[in-house]
Amino acid sequence: MSDNALVEAVVRAVLQQLRAPEEAPCACHGATGGCCPDRFGRLVGHGAERFGLQAGKTAYPREIARMIDHTLLKPDATRSQIETLCGEAREHGFATVCVNPTWVRLCADLLRGSETRVCTVAGFPLGATPGSVKAFETIRVIEDGAREVDMVMNVGALKSGDYRLVERDVAGVADACCERGVLSKVIIETALLTDDEKVKACVIVKAAGADFVKTSTGFASGGATAADVALMRRVVGPEMGVKAAGGVKDLKSAQAMIEAGADRIGASVGVKIVQESRGQKPAAGGPTGY
Amino acid sequence: MSDNALVEAVVRAVLQQLRAPEEAPCACHGATGGCCPDRFGRLVGHGAERFGLQAGKTAYPREIARMIDHTLLKPDATRSQIETLCGEAREHGFATVCVNPTWVRLCADLLRGSETRVCTVAGFPLGATPGSVKAFETIRVIEDGAREVDMVMNVGALKSGDYRLVERDVAGVADACCERGVLSKVIIETALLTDDEKVKACVIVKAAGADFVKTSTGFASGGATAADVALMRRVVGPEMGVKAAGGVKDLKSAQAMIEAGADRIGASVGVKIVQESRGQKPAAGGPTGY
Repeated sequence: MSDNALVEAVVRAVLQQLRAPEEAPCACHGATGGCCPDRFGRLVGHGAERFGLQAGKTAYPREIARMIDHTLLKPDATRSQIETLCGEAREHGFATVCVNPTWVRLCADLLRGSETRVCTVAGFPLGATPGSVKAFETIRVIEDGAREVDMVMNVGALKSGDYRLVERDVAGVADACCERGVLSKVIIETALLTDDEKVKACVIVKAAGADFVKTSTGFASGGATAADVALMRRVVGPEMGVKAAGGVKDLKSAQAMIEAGADRIGASVGVKIVQESRGQKPAAGGPTGY
Repeated sequence: MSDNALVEAVVRAVLQQLRAPEEAPCACHGATGGCCPDRFGRLVGHGAERFGLQAGKTAYPREIARMIDHTLLKPDATRSQIETLCGEAREHGFATVCVNPTWVRLCADLLRGSETRVCTVAGFPLGATPGSVKAFETIRVIEDGAREVDMVMNVGALKSGDYRLVERDVAGVADACCERGVLSKVIIETALLTDDEKVKACVIVKAAGADFVKTSTGFASGGATAADVALMRRVVGPEMGVKAAGGVKDLKSAQAMIEAGADRIGASVGVKIVQESRGQKPAAGGPTGY
């Protein structure tokens, strides 16, 4: 069986388990028929268009910056550090700042009028809370000003073969986002999954109507790899976003992710990446750790 | 200034910042007047009474088991591993199983009729989500069958000096638990705090009406130390519980925590601890990691 045929067989098998025969996929959430007719428009509207970078070519600093979620998710991050993060995002034009939910309102205030949006997380970083809690958290952070929500998949349920629970869990957040014009990303935490599980996870995320699939929380034993990004892109196709996060340490690794198919990069070293893309030597200091 | 006088001064300073003059502490939540008149009764009712172990003495296996939250919080834990955890808890008579929220209903079903209760977590492990989300999660897990809830403090807010937010965050969960006859524990994540911040955190937890203060999530760079347990016990006094978690690897370290003032131990190695307390050689295998 060819690689493509194998992926197709897995897709069919997972979708069969997800939906009983009487539950035909709705127009909005049928993976086979193209999810959410307006998804691509929303992706482009949120700046998630792919830049078609060629292997070996260096993107312009602004193009790179527009692909970066400037990230600070450490639990002990202070108000002062969050203010610095937002200042850097304004200066360099990052796509978003990615912060914990407790900081969303502050960031929305600080970034008002800028081109940088607020991204936050739900069920983070373990993903092991009920779907209703993730959906509640999603609605709350959107009310606070989040325009993108990165939720964590229920990895334990996936590993237990409970694909229906996983799909409902994702759909609860994706629907809450979709109804409010907000982008949803789903972290599958690749470091905890086999390749087979990564494929299943991506199929479920697509079937559930989310906008992006994302590699990692940055809190597991490993982060994004180019091989995982390529696999995820192959499974979800061109109409969804793929975000590489965790372990992106410099321009070179960011470019490797983009060349493998990523259209968004989650990193705490966004300033360093932009400086490198300008041919500047990065300044010492800056955020350390995800 | 003596150590005791220093602690008292910090307590006064933090309480002054927590409450404006017009907001006199209510009968239930006044730290100075003894919080929640029924707190001690609830603690004893939940088996959290202290066993008064003397330094160097080995507790009976059953006494040790009744102090242990038998813990499996890994995000990739499967249904099968959770079932094993509950079987071990029934066999040894652990105080609780401590699992992620997604498994509470299953554990409540499996442990029905046993003396082991279900403990779970809220805002875990980062603590950086709004209080309303933690309170919602708390109510949801109680509906699913949780009898103890270990929430994580908003460490970033504490470090930013926003003590009022921290207190409201804790009170939201503590109140939701108290109204439903459920124990609340607050993880202050000692590895991220200075000694001064640990004292402030304990004062706030007590003022907010929680039942226990707990050292660690098990997901930070460090776990419980006997010195931290002793400090926390000194600040909260005898009428609150202190739970030591993270890094308790055997009977010896469990006893060190108890001698320092802990009346509950969170550990993934509960079976090993009980076997050691019987003088048995622990079996190979079993849960690895928190």
